This record gives sequence, C-alpha cells and structure tokens, in this order.
Amino acid sequence: MDAYLIGVPFDSAVSWRPGTRLGPQAIRDASFNIETYSYRYSFDAENLRIEDLGDLSVVHGDSEKTLQRLEETVAETPTQGTPFVTVGGEHTVAYAPVKALKPDLFLVFDAHTDMRDQYLDYHWSHATISRRVSELVGPQNVVQVGVRASCKEELEFIRESGVTEISALQIHRDGVESAANVLKQRLQSASKVYVSIDLDVLDPAFMPGVGNPEAEGLTTHQLLNLLDKVVDRRLVGLDVTELNPLLDTSGVSAITAARIILEVLSKKAAL
Amino acid sequence: MDAYLIGVPFDSAVSWRPGTRLGPQAIRDASFNIETYSYRYSFDAENLRIEDLGDLSVVHGDSEKTLQRLEETVAETPTQGTPFVTVGGEHTVAYAPVKALKPDLFLVFDAHTDMRDQYLDYHWSHATISRRVSELVGPQNVVQVGVRASCKEELEFIRESGVTEISALQIHRDGVESAANVLKQRLQSASKVYVSIDLDVLDPAFMPGVGNPEAEGLTTHQLLNLLDKVVDRRLVGLDVTELNPLLDTSGVSAITAARIILEVLSKKAAL
Amino acid sequence: MDAYLIGVPFDSAVSWRPGTRLGPQAIRDASFNIETYSYRYSFDAENLRIEDLGDLSVVHGDSEKTLQRLEETVAETPTQGTPFVTVGGEHTVAYAPVKALKPDLFLVFDAHTDMRDQYLDYHWSHATISRRVSELVGPQNVVQVGVRASCKEELEFIRESGVTEISALQIHRDGVESAANVLKQRLQSASKVYVSIDLDVLDPAFMPGVGNPEAEGLTTHQLLNLLDKVVDRRLVGLDVTELNPLLDTSGVSAITAARIILEVLSKKAAL
Amino acid sequence: MDAYLIGVPFDSAVSWRPGTRLGPQAIRDASFNIETYSYRYSFDAENLRIEDLGDLSVVHGDSEKTLQRLEETVAETPTQGTPFVTVGGEHTVAYAPVKALKPDLFLVFDAHTDMRDQYLDYHWSHATISRRVSELVGPQNVVQVGVRASCKEELEFIRESGVTEISALQIHRDGVESAANVLKQRLQSASKVYVSIDLDVLDPAFMPGVGNPEAEGLTTHQLLNLLDKVVDRRLVGLDVTELNPLLDTSGVSAITAARIILEVLSKKAAL
Amino acid sequence: MDAYLIGVPFDSAVSWRPGTRLGPQAIRDASFNIETYSYRYSFDAENLRIEDLGDLSVVHGDSEKTLQRLEETVAETPTQGTPFVTVGGEHTVAYAPVKALKPDLFLVFDAHTDMRDQYLDYHWSHATISRRVSELVGPQNVVQVGVRASCKEELEFIRESGVTEISALQIHRDGVESAANVLKQRLQSASKVYVSIDLDVLDPAFMPGVGNPEAEGLTTHQLLNLLDKVVDRRLVGLDVTELNPLLDTSGVSAITAARIILEVLSKKAAL
Amino acid sequence: MDAYLIGVPFDSAVSWRPGTRLGPQAIRDASFNIETYSYRYSFDAENLRIEDLGDLSVVHGDSEKTLQRLEETVAETPTQGTPFVTVGGEHTVAYAPVKALKPDLFLVFDAHTDMRDQYLDYHWSHATISRRVSELVGPQNVVQVGVRASCKEELEFIRESGVTEISALQIHRDGVESAANVLKQRLQSASKVYVSIDLDVLDPAFMPGVGNPEAEGLTTHQLLNLLDKVVDRRLVGLDVTELNPLLDTSGVSAITAARIILEVLSKKAAL
Repeated sequence: MDAYLIGVPFDSAVSWRPGTRLGPQAIRDASFNIETYSYRYSFDAENLRIEDLGDLSVVHGDSEKTLQRLEETVAETPTQGTPFVTVGGEHTVAYAPVKALKPDLFLVFDAHTDMRDQYLDYHWSHATISRRVSELVGPQNVVQVGVRASCKEELEFIRESGVTEISALQIHRDGVESAANVLKQRLQSASKVYVSIDLDVLDPAFMPGVGNPEAEGLTTHQLLNLLDKVVDRRLVGLDVTELNPLLDTSGVSAITAARIILEVLSKKAAL
Repeated sequence: MDAYLIGVPFDSAVSWRPGTRLGPQAIRDASFNIETYSYRYSFDAENLRIEDLGDLSVVHGDSEKTLQRLEETVAETPTQGTPFVTVGGEHTVAYAPVKALKPDLFLVFDAHTDMRDQYLDYHWSHATISRRVSELVGPQNVVQVGVRASCKEELEFIRESGVTEISALQIHRDGVESAANVLKQRLQSASKVYVSIDLDVLDPAFMPGVGNPEAEGLTTHQLLNLLDKVVDRRLVGLDVTELNPLLDTSGVSAITAARIILEVLSKKAAL
Repeated sequence: MDAYLIGVPFDSAVSWRPGTRLGPQAIRDASFNIETYSYRYSFDAENLRIEDLGDLSVVHGDSEKTLQRLEETVAETPTQGTPFVTVGGEHTVAYAPVKALKPDLFLVFDAHTDMRDQYLDYHWSHATISRRVSELVGPQNVVQVGVRASCKEELEFIRESGVTEISALQIHRDGVESAANVLKQRLQSASKVYVSIDLDVLDPAFMPGVGNPEAEGLTTHQLLNLLDKVVDRRLVGLDVTELNPLLDTSGVSAITAARIILEVLSKKAAL
Repeated sequence: MDAYLIGVPFDSAVSWRPGTRLGPQAIRDASFNIETYSYRYSFDAENLRIEDLGDLSVVHGDSEKTLQRLEETVAETPTQGTPFVTVGGEHTVAYAPVKALKPDLFLVFDAHTDMRDQYLDYHWSHATISRRVSELVGPQNVVQVGVRASCKEELEFIRESGVTEISALQIHRDGVESAANVLKQRLQSASKVYVSIDLDVLDPAFMPGVGNPEAEGLTTHQLLNLLDKVVDRRLVGLDVTELNPLLDTSGVSAITAARIILEVLSKKAAL
Repeated sequence: MDAYLIGVPFDSAVSWRPGTRLGPQAIRDASFNIETYSYRYSFDAENLRIEDLGDLSVVHGDSEKTLQRLEETVAETPTQGTPFVTVGGEHTVAYAPVKALKPDLFLVFDAHTDMRDQYLDYHWSHATISRRVSELVGPQNVVQVGVRASCKEELEFIRESGVTEISALQIHRDGVESAANVLKQRLQSASKVYVSIDLDVLDPAFMPGVGNPEAEGLTTHQLLNLLDKVVDRRLVGLDVTELNPLLDTSGVSAITAARIILEVLSKKAAL
Repeated sequence: MDAYLIGVPFDSAVSWRPGTRLGPQAIRDASFNIETYSYRYSFDAENLRIEDLGDLSVVHGDSEKTLQRLEETVAETPTQGTPFVTVGGEHTVAYAPVKALKPDLFLVFDAHTDMRDQYLDYHWSHATISRRVSELVGPQNVVQVGVRASCKEELEFIRESGVTEISALQIHRDGVESAANVLKQRLQSASKVYVSIDLDVLDPAFMPGVGNPEAEGLTTHQLLNLLDKVVDRRLVGLDVTELNPLLDTSGVSAITAARIILEVLSKKAAL
C-alpha cells in the first residue's frame, strides 16, 4: 500500500466564505481527469496503490465530535509507515491525524500562522489550528512555510515558543534553495514527519479557490519544489485542506490540489 | 417602533450546500435597492420605524452558544408587542426567538417538515428545527404550511402529536383561499403569533437561492396572499431564513426575501 | 419590410447593477438559437423581413448625446408605418424613438412606474423614463401595465395627471382578460401605438436577468397574451429593454426576450 | 427490482451550448440530497429497489457507436417488465432504449417537435430524435406533449404522418385535465409504454439548466400531474435528458430532474 | 490620522464590461477578512487611523458632476499632509483628487497609457484619464509604470510631451530594481507625490477582476516592491481603481486590492 | 494580406468539460476590446490585413466530416505563403490545416503530449492529435514545447520515434533562452513551419479557461518570448485551440488568446 486516504467534508467553523466541505469531492473528480504521469519523478501515479476510505461521516456543527471520529479512524487504520492522507475540509481537521500519528516534526505550508489561542470565541477554528497542533507536538517541532498573514499576538507566540518560520517574503527574496536548506536542517533529527498543506500557501493566482486567500504567495512550482525536499520515507501523514470549489468556477484549484497529492505520493513511491 | 431586526449569519450545521450565513448581508443590500411602496397595503415602507440591531456575534461551529446568545439578545430587547424579526442564517436560528418570545401559535412556512429528532447525529440541525420548536410551544400549537418534503418518521410524529399540516399539494389542489380558512380557524384562539419562513417554501423558480430547494412549491404571490391572512396585531416574531446568495447569481432570491419582510411589516404597520 | 431594428448598448445611468449594455448582443445571439415558428400565430418568423441597423454608436457616460443620436437615427429611417424596434440597453433609451415616432398612445409594460421627476439628481434615469415620455405624449396617453413598484410622489402624479395604470396585483386578481378589456378601450381612439417593454414587468422567476427585479410579476404567458391584444397595424414602435445578461448565467432571460420580439413581429406580419 | 438505471454522459451532437454530458452526475448528486418521501403517492422512495448500472462508456464524437452500445446494454438487461431508466445526456440517447425495448406507444414530453430529417447535416442530432424514433415505432404511435418550438417542415410531417401533438399553448388554454383525457385515450390500445422527457418541456423558470430553453413551458406541477396520468404497469422505459448543469448555478434544475424520476418510480412502485 | 478614504462607486463611462462601481464595497468587505499585519513593514494595520468618509454620492451618467463633487469633497477635507485615498470606480475618478491635491509628481501604475484625447467621442473616458491629468500637472511630471497597451497617437504624445514611461516589458527584461532606480531619480525633485493605481497594471493571473485586462503584467509582489520605493512622507494622494468584482467570482481581486492599500498605508505609517 | 483566419467551433470529442466550441466567438469579442499596439514589435495590429473567413460550418458529432471540410477550406484558400490561422475549438482541428499546408516542421505548444494512438476508443480525440499529425509530417519533424502531462505509452513512442520534447520542467529549470536554442537548431533545416498552440501550455493561473488545465505551466510572458524565436517568414500556419470561455467568468483567457494571435501576426508583419 502506498497511501490511505480519507475525505473530510467539514467546514462548520469557517468564519468567512463556506464551501470547503465540497473539497474532497472536487479533488476526487479532478484526479480522474488529469494525467497521472509525474515528469518530476518519472513515475506513473496509476501504479500507486491507494486505499480510499471514502468520506468521514462528519457531524456538521460539532467540531469536537468530528475531530474525534477522524482521530479514531486514523488510529484504527493499520498504516505501518504508509502515509495517511487527509483531504479537507477546513484546516482544523489536521488536528486529528496529527494526534493519532504522533509525528515528531510538523511541517505546515500555510499563508496564515494560525497561532491564535481563540478566534471569534472558538477554540477549534481554522485560525487556531497550528496553535492546537503545537500543543500536541511541541512548538519547537513546528515549521511554518510560506506564511504572510498574522497578527501581533501570534508572532510573539511564535518567537517565544520556538516555532520555526519561513515567510513567503523570505522565499521570494532568498529563493527556494535557501528555504530548502533550512528545511533540510530541521529534518535531520526527525523520525516521523507530518506535512500539512493549507492550499492558501499558494498565491491566489495559482489557487483562487480557497476561503482566505492572501496575496504574494508561492507559485505551484515553488511549492512542489519545496515538497520535493521534505518528502521521504519518514512521511507518516499528509493533509491538503481549505479548497473551496465554490469560489473557483474554472476548477483549476481542484486540479492543482489533486496534482500536489499525486506528486507527493509519487515521490514517496518512487524512492 | 414597528420592528426590531437582527441578522444571524450562521450556517454551521447546514448539511449540504453552505452559504446561508451570507443571507443577512444580501437581504440588507437588496432592501436598499427595491422600491418601498406596498401596492397591497397602500403603505410606504420608508415610513417604517425599524431598529436594526446589526448582526449577532455568532460562534461558527457552535450552535448552542449561538442560539443562547440570540435568545438573550431577544429577551433583553424591550419589544412590548413590537415584532422581533430574525434574518438567517440557517433555519435553526428560529429556535432562539421562539424561546424568548413564548408565542402560543407557531406558523411555519417550509418545504420540509423538519420534524426529525436527530439528523446526521445532530440535535440542532435545520432538519430538526420544527421538532425542537414543537417541544417549546407544544405540537398542537404548530401549523406547517407548504410542506412537501418529509420522511415516514416525521409524518408519523406529525399525525400522532397533533401538528397541523397544510401541504403544498393541498394548496395547489384546493387553492389559497381554502388554506387561508384553515389558518383563520387556528388563529382564533391564539394571542401571540410567531411566523417562521423558511424561504424554500417557495418554488425553486421563485427562490432558487436556498440550500435545499424542493419542486412544486408556492409562488411568491401565493405566499404573500397567505401571509396577508395571518399577520395582525398579535404578531410577536418573524424569521426569514435559509437564503443562500451564493446559489443565485441573479440576486432575485435576496430581493424577494426583502420584499416578503417589507410586506409583512407594512401590513402590521398599516393596521 | 416588417421591421427596422437597432441595438442600443447603453447603461450609463443605471443606478444599481450595470450590464444592460450587453443586452443587444445577448438577444441577437439567442435569436439565432431558438426555433422561429410561432404556435400562437402559425407563422414562421424566418419569413420576417427585418432590417437590422446594427448597434447605435453610443456615448458612454452621456445620456443626452446618446438619446439625440438615437432620435436622429429613428427619424432618418423611412419607416412608413413599419414598426421600429429598439433593443436596450437601459429603459431610458425608449425616450428617443417615442420622440421621433410621435405616437398618440404609449403602452408601457413595466414593474416600476418610473414616474420620478429626478432620481439621484439625474434627469435621464431609468427611474424617470415614463415621466419624460409622458411630457412628450401627454400623461393621459400613457398606459402602464404590470406595475408593482413605486413611491408616493409617483403615485400622486399618476392619479393627478391622468395616466392609466393596470397594476400587477390587479392582473393577478382579475385575470388577463379583464386587463385586456381596459387596454382595448384605451386603444379605440389611438392611431399610432408605441409599445415599451421593460423586461422587469415579468416575474423574476421568468426574467431573472434584469437590473431591478421585483417579485409578483407577470408570467411570460400572461405578457404574451396581453401583447396579443395590443399589437395590430397601428404599432409604430416597440422597445425591449433592461435585459442584463451578466445576471443570468443560464441565458434564459435573453431567450425569452428574443421570443417576445419574435411573437410581436409575427403577429404584426401575420395580420 | 423497481427499476434499472443508466447514465449516458454524452453530448457530442449538441448544436448550441454543450454540457448535458454532466447531467447524470448532477442528477445522482441531487438525488442524495432531496427528501425521498412522495406526498403524491404516500410512498417513500427509499424503499425503491433501483439497480444503478453506472454510466455508459460513451465514445465522445461518435453518436452511432454510443447509441449501439447503449442499445446492447439495454437489450442485455433482463428487465422482465421492470422499467429501464436512461439519464442523459442529450435527447438523442433516447433512440437506443426505444429500439431495444420495442414499445408500442412513445410519449415524449418536449418543447421541440424534434422532427427534422437532418439538422446541420447530421442524422443523429437532438433536433431529429423524435423523427428517428417515429421511424422505429411508427408515427401514429408517437404522442408529443408540451411542444411549442418547431418549423414548417416538421409540422407538415407531424400532420401528414399521424403523430399526435398536444402543444403547450393547448395545455395553458384548456388545462391539464383536457390534455390528460387525450393521453388516456391514446393509452387505451397500448401494451408497452415508453416515456421520454426532454426537460426543456418545462418552462425555463422551472428548468433553466437546459441547452435549448423555450418560453411558455409547463410548470413542474403540471408535468408531474400529466405523468401521473400516464404511468402504470405498462411503463417499460423512461428517459430524462438535456439537463445541462453548467447553465444553472443554483442547481435547482438537477434537483427537479431527480424529483421527476422519483415521482415516476414511486407511482409505479406504489401501484 | 493616517489616511482619509472615500469610495467612488462610479462607472458610467466604462466602454466594455461595467461593474467597477461595485469596487468600493468589495474592497471594504475584503478588508474585514484579511489579516492586518504587514510582514514587509512589521506593522499591524489595525493601528492605522483611517477616516472612512463612506461613498461619494455619485451621479450615474454624469461624469462631470461626479468629478466636481469628488474634487470639492477632497478640497474640503483638512488633510494637512495626510494621504487622501480614493477607491474606485473607474480610473477617471483619479482626476478629481489630483485637481484638489495639486501634486508635482503623478505616478500612475497602469497597463494602458490612457493618453487618448477623446475616446468614443468622450472627453472623460477611462482611456483619456492620464491625458486629462497631464493637462493638470504637466506631462513632464507624469510617470507611467507597467504600461503595455497603447496606440500610435498616444505613444507619439508621450514621446513629444515628456511623459516618463516604464513599460511592463522593460520591467520583465531589466527587473524591478532597474525600474526602481528610474523612479528614485524622478522622485528627487518632487515635494508632493500622488500615486494612482489602475489595478490592471497587474497581470490578469493576479488581478482577473478588471474591466480591461492585458496580458504580461506585473505580479503582485513586483507591484508591492515598486510601491515600497515610492511611498514616503511626500505621499499626498492614492487611488486604487478599476476593480470589477462581477468579473472575479473567487473574490481574490478585491482581496489583493485591499492588501495593496494596507501595504501602502502601513509603509507611510511605519516611517 | 497578412493572414487568413477561420473559426472552428467544434468540440464533439472533448472528453471532460465541453465548451471549446465557444472559443472562436470569445476570441473575436476580446480582440475588439484590447489595445492593438504591440510593444514587443512596435507595430500596430490595426494595420494587419486579416481576411476573416468566419466560422467553419461544422458537423457536431462527426469529427471526420468536420476535419475534411476544414482541410478543403484551407486547401482552397490561395494563401501563397500568407499564414493560415485556425481558431478552435478542440485541438483536434489542427489536423486539417497541417494536412492541407504540408509543413516540414510542426511546433506544438501543449501541456499534454497528445500522443495516444486511441483515447476512449476514439481515433480523433484531442488526446491523440499530436500522434495523428506525426503520421502526416513524420515524428522527427515534430517538436513539443511545454509538455508536462503524459502517460508511459506516449513517452515511449516519443523516445522511439524521434519526436523532440522540451518539457515545462526543463524550461522552469534552464530558462527560456535554453529552450530557444533548441528551437533555433530545429528550425535551421525547415522551410515551412506550422505552429500549434494548445492554450493549456500556459499555467492555469494565466489560462484558467481550458478544458484540461495542468499545473506548472508557462507564463504568458514565457510563451510570447518563445514564440518570438520561432515566428519568421517560414510560418505557413498557426492554430490556437482549447479555449473554453465557459470555464473563465473573468474573460481573461480569451483576452490572452487574442493577444497571442496579435503578437504572432505582428511579428510576421513587422519582419
């Protein structure tokens, strides 16, 4: 088996423009209609053995129950080192597989630091997800890549708690190679790596279909080149979240999301 | 004062197509751009004194806290017989004003019976709202108009519990007058009337922008003629819910929703 | 020749949602793709001899210059009794053909009375068009059909000045036949009839693609039945305005607008 | 078994606005999200035993091969009187099940007569489908309901060949009951009935998402009342075609299409 | 006070695709939903003191009256060196603040040279705005950045009159630094700088929601880096125009426009 | 004469999302609304003498007949070295002008290798077009630029048959100049060059409106720079295909497609 995959059509805590619940279906539809061969890895994704567990039976309006169900599902899956892929849904859903898989490095690609303690009085918001996860794995084991949207409170927490941050502006200024070097260093001591991709890490030009787009993001090419540096045998989990197909009538956001998953899994399988 | 009005941009428990949270803004926008004169009541809605309380500070992802806040807001408003108007948001929000206003008749215009006890494991779903309300006011004080979508469990509850049901098919077959007669009878013994309008009571031709449209609904003209029969000095509360502006690019759903509110308040004010 | 036709892609004075300038192109596109046979008149519109003058060279941002050009174009066309058809664009454009054609009866199908003297400080707004035209032909020669949106000032002017009004509510209550009788009477003394159709006279269900939709309008069937009563050899001009194709992704509004023109011209040609 | 069902995602010969190939998926999606209980028949469609054969493997760009495959699939299905339901896709696909099922009455609900011999040089166009089918079953065994778009050539063929026609204008003028009487008479001598529904038989207000909408169509309520008259034990086949979900962002067209199928099958099952 | 801000919902003279009147509302909506912290300037825009004057009361269809009102409003605002921000609406509106603020340098970021003397017979078109402004400040005090769409007449005027032009092709070939050097030089002798941003200076990939997009434009990152070079204490006015939210269903254009304003004001405030 | 141009509104064999038939109209519309001056070549495209042959009378549903008609049209046009421009429609249509014009070099810009022998049982699919063309001109005379989507079978054919391939990844890694060098070499021995542009060669950020978008494509600037290297007096034919305007509500895809054609023809005319 090359991967277990589950869809989590959940967006109850989205604060602005809902629709990420439709992400899993849109990404599956897109994956049937793009070519499967990876030029980067000379590997045909048709050869991937993916067990699609279908969609989680979510409880709309109840984040805690939904996260608990997801955690149980991940925990009960006999992955034995095979990466578990979670397709959102809102970014919040990342909490559950991290809790179940217990990685010692959490690499999150995201436009937002998502390090608020509460957001609009709510503990389980997409704006608090990285904070929640940092409580699980320890802030010093969190690496944020591509961030460019935050607030003072969050930035103070990041600095004080030891989270590693590679901002989008840094990447634009110093290039992907420089960021790759930082990532490589952080990977050295890790044994179980979890990669979390909030699709808004990409520039809105490349990923218009997300709930909270922010200008000056990464190109798809930059993101795939960065992922190339961090995916290896230690990958235990991956999530791809925040796709909102309602906001992208062209469908290219879903197609790009599907491509990202295929490239990551092709790299892992081609190792 | 002719009315107090609040927007409740909440849709966390929507099960299919989210977006009703954008309803209050869309209805306010529309209300600025339609003519205010009511031909039906020879009354200019510009003369209405409406206190707009703005939007409730909802907690996305937490129905109970949101409903509680709404209930408190309604309870704290010194209405003294002035109707309180709630603009959704999902239909669930109707629970709070009913709890606060304590009507002895609950008239709900809705395509769905919404009488499930639970829906997708959730107690506070739009599919359970009429059941929840019937627990507050007593099933024999609930009148459902325009229903055409249900399931066996719900229909059994309706029959056994004494809920009055006027289905859409009945109205198509026997006409609006016949339905008006049933309503008139039910109104005789009431002293405080609450009217709840799930906009999907209208046919999708007239109201495409709702989360769960059902064919064979009422025309706008039929609905306004029915409302004309039930609005009088006893009206203590009104809600208009389930508008999803994302699903109607023409904007006519929001315009019609605004018109419905204006007509109801114009009737009340012109009495 | 059965008709002269011009498009007027002009919407500078639209106050809310612009886009009616795209009306002429959308209606032409639609007319190529609908069937041409009229069941009502057993006449094939393919046999119509229509001279399409193309689109007027409008001056965006300058209503007076645009109207003047249109008036000159109509005046210079040697119609000799052949109807001149103006396809909008905003309803304001109706002023020019009326001025050029000098009818003694102005029948306007419209949701709005459009009888303001000024609107948003502007003399040439779509909300003032019927007032402007009434200054040309005399208010007592104006008949408004299907109106349901107005304000006090306008209604007073209508009553005092002798404009005939057949409201949408009247038509819903008394039927199309009753309205037809009023129209028939008003037609008796006329020798040159001009018919002006603001497409928002239709219910938004049948015509979502207009700038200012209003609920409780006519069905397409009702409108065509009413037009059937008023179109005869005395028809000197017709305009069809306010289609905004941007607001109707399905395109049915343009198709219905094209059908209305075909039916009117088929009736005239089949006489 | 209550029905066999197949999707035919084929629209190669559509002449104007493509997209009907997406019909089967949209109708399946909608069917999961509407209530299943039929008020008309007091029957819960959840109890229907439908064998969904999935989507036909169509050959885009090759109508003949596609129709042949569909015909073979229908012929190989051991229906034994159980209705075979074909979900389009363009209306052309109706030819194949008719050929396989050999009904002696073909009832087609359609805005267009579709009786051209060729259309745009093509034998297998949606504009020729009723002609093709009349060659199979004999024109005197074809009944067209709701038609309102045609051309001279087609109308001559209809009159000369003995096709029965109930136009939309007739239904508007004389009512559904009158049309039902004509249908009842035609049904008397039939033993195997095939019902073909081109969704554009409905008015664009009720069914905006079709390739070739025509004004003055039926309401959903009228169509379902007519279907109620013609569905009984003799029903061998049903098709529902021409849904184009790309043209209806609200999704109500798909929802109504799903409802039509559920009502027909509920009637059959509840007999 | 860090800025005065006004919305100008005006687009009467737009020649192609209307809708820029909806720009101010869309940008305000977006600004409530993006993060406020500027990574570039380590400044939280929540600390900005912006006096929002609301929307100008425009006269649809009358450019001159609208510009005059805007000029008066700007002139009457006691800015005392605080930048005045105008949010369009069409680019034409830039004329008024320039006339009121009397800068000695006009920096315009635009895909189009907009240097026609007349456009479609109209003096006040978006295609003539830079010509009109050059008449106010003198052509030698006009600097155009990012241009890539023009005609012969305009290019001749530019060369002969002394306008400085930095084309998009130059920026692509020589880099942002080289363009920044030219700008720096031109800024040396200026004491009051006005920055005018027609959003179509960005590539359509980054800014799809504009009336007249042109390929090969700047990235958002390039534009923000260029703005970083020109914003300092001498900034007296800024306009951001030509956003057409109707053309961008994803909303990213409005979000990027809001970000541009925030970054400019954050730089000014953080000086 | 600088070019002959024909539209081919054909998309019968499209396998996923139909709509490319609307490409020719969208590109013509866009071409009327963009500026005509080419900064790259200091040439005003208004001076181009283009004979627009209108749209081919296609046979929807019959690829072979359509291609045959197109081939005849091209063959009958007395081009005498003037480039023949084909505007699609699906990429398949490229086959006909290549057959008629008999180039000795076929340069195709495309995300997909399109080298399948059959696709979904069909010989004339967009996924087989480059294979079909290679049978005409010889695989060793085919150069593919920007490819990034393929399958094993195709890549083997490419390697074995001698097709030249310049992948998108190569261009991202080595730069446009390096690719230009390879192209220059391949051009040396050619005397008649045909350039085929499947618009999906561009990144979806720059060209969202195509049927089969693939991530990591070229920027518009890169494509125009590459075209600059290959267009000279030997250009006998050009096609621009696969634009699907239904998928891009902003219209920027059509605008960019129009720009590409103008730049190529401006270069040729300015030589």
